[in-house]
Amino acid sequence: MEKRMTIIKATNITWHQGHVERARREGLLRQRGCTLWFTGLPSSGKSTAAFTLEHELIRQGHPAYVLDGDNIRHGLNKNLGFSAEDREENIRRIGEVARLFADAGLIAMTSFISPYRKDRDHARQLHVEAGLGFIEIFIDTPVEICEERDPKGLYKKARRGEIKGFTGVDDPYEAPLHPEMVIRTAESSPAETAAAILGYLQEHGYVNAM
Amino acid sequence: MEKRMTIIKATNITWHQGHVERARREGLLRQRGCTLWFTGLPSSGKSTAAFTLEHELIRQGHPAYVLDGDNIRHGLNKNLGFSAEDREENIRRIGEVARLFADAGLIAMTSFISPYRKDRDHARQLHVEAGLGFIEIFIDTPVEICEERDPKGLYKKARRGEIKGFTGVDDPYEAPLHPEMVIRTAESSPAETAAAILGYLQEHGYVNAM
Repeated sequence: MEKRMTIIKATNITWHQGHVERARREGLLRQRGCTLWFTGLPSSGKSTAAFTLEHELIRQGHPAYVLDGDNIRHGLNKNLGFSAEDREENIRRIGEVARLFADAGLIAMTSFISPYRKDRDHARQLHVEAGLGFIEIFIDTPVEICEERDPKGLYKKARRGEIKGFTGVDDPYEAPLHPEMVIRTAESSPAETAAAILGYLQEHGYVNAM
Repeated sequence: MEKRMTIIKATNITWHQGHVERARREGLLRQRGCTLWFTGLPSSGKSTAAFTLEHELIRQGHPAYVLDGDNIRHGLNKNLGFSAEDREENIRRIGEVARLFADAGLIAMTSFISPYRKDRDHARQLHVEAGLGFIEIFIDTPVEICEERDPKGLYKKARRGEIKGFTGVDDPYEAPLHPEMVIRTAESSPAETAAAILGYLQEHGYVNAM
């Protein structure tokens, strides 16, 4: 052992054999960990809503983190394809990771189409069992508007048959039956959407009003 | 949209299309996200070291989170067994999740035997590529002492042949060649170990000295 060990008074440190209690994390972070599960068609505006809210939460001092295609599909889930089985496993893992983030006290946000009710309900169940909040946010943008936006030209490719099993074109999107929030992006800007969700988090005591 | 939307001034909220920058997270959390990768034989003292440090970090105001068998094997990795392939995938996923936590600005700790150099090096590589700190901590406890502790009686079962492929008995443990830290738990208490690692984090600017 190096000499630095003697610099810090180890006598002040208490031996522990288990995880830090949730209440202590909440006290430190001044918020309750939870998961905001964004779901909706491709190009419906999920990520823009999530990122706009992430910036605002952090600006207000609330640790938050968005799980999305960028940091999940190229990392944790890079060994998954687009078969029915792999899609289910994709969402299962995302639900588990979101739960870990919420358990760590963060406001986790997931931004994935997550078209199947069963998979989203499973993610919800994981959180409920752990006593963690799960807020399903349906980004309810009509498919015509999504298709008009189509920033990556994916709808076009799907219409031409170059992509198979594309949600909203030749694969179903199962809208949530009882989401905590419904956002109509045709009627509200990303800033208004973020404000609405922030209002929800404040009303339900996940974060304090500023 | 509900009326609460009008309560919060959406005009103060700025539209964003991408993740929050790492520097902003570091500013909020007053620390640099990184992963402390604990490795060592079964019963070497990895978890006790990690949990003691987690409590102390949080006491000092530093968000930290331990990934261990409890929250990983029964969750994210519950569909993995103990084949060579599954063991590799187990550590791969843990490395990816730790990276997500470190990217979110937390001090992530992983407490797994992780016996193979190749798998640990892969986890390190993931962090290096992302510009995130990776601190490999070898909990260097002689197998005789681990076997004496054996709180769950696993060494006994392995010696009787009731468990096959048990690290330290009939499966190899590949000690790190260049770990950032080596801890000899036979010579230092969990509190001293936590103090030593805290000293390392302070010296390397991951957290500020109190």
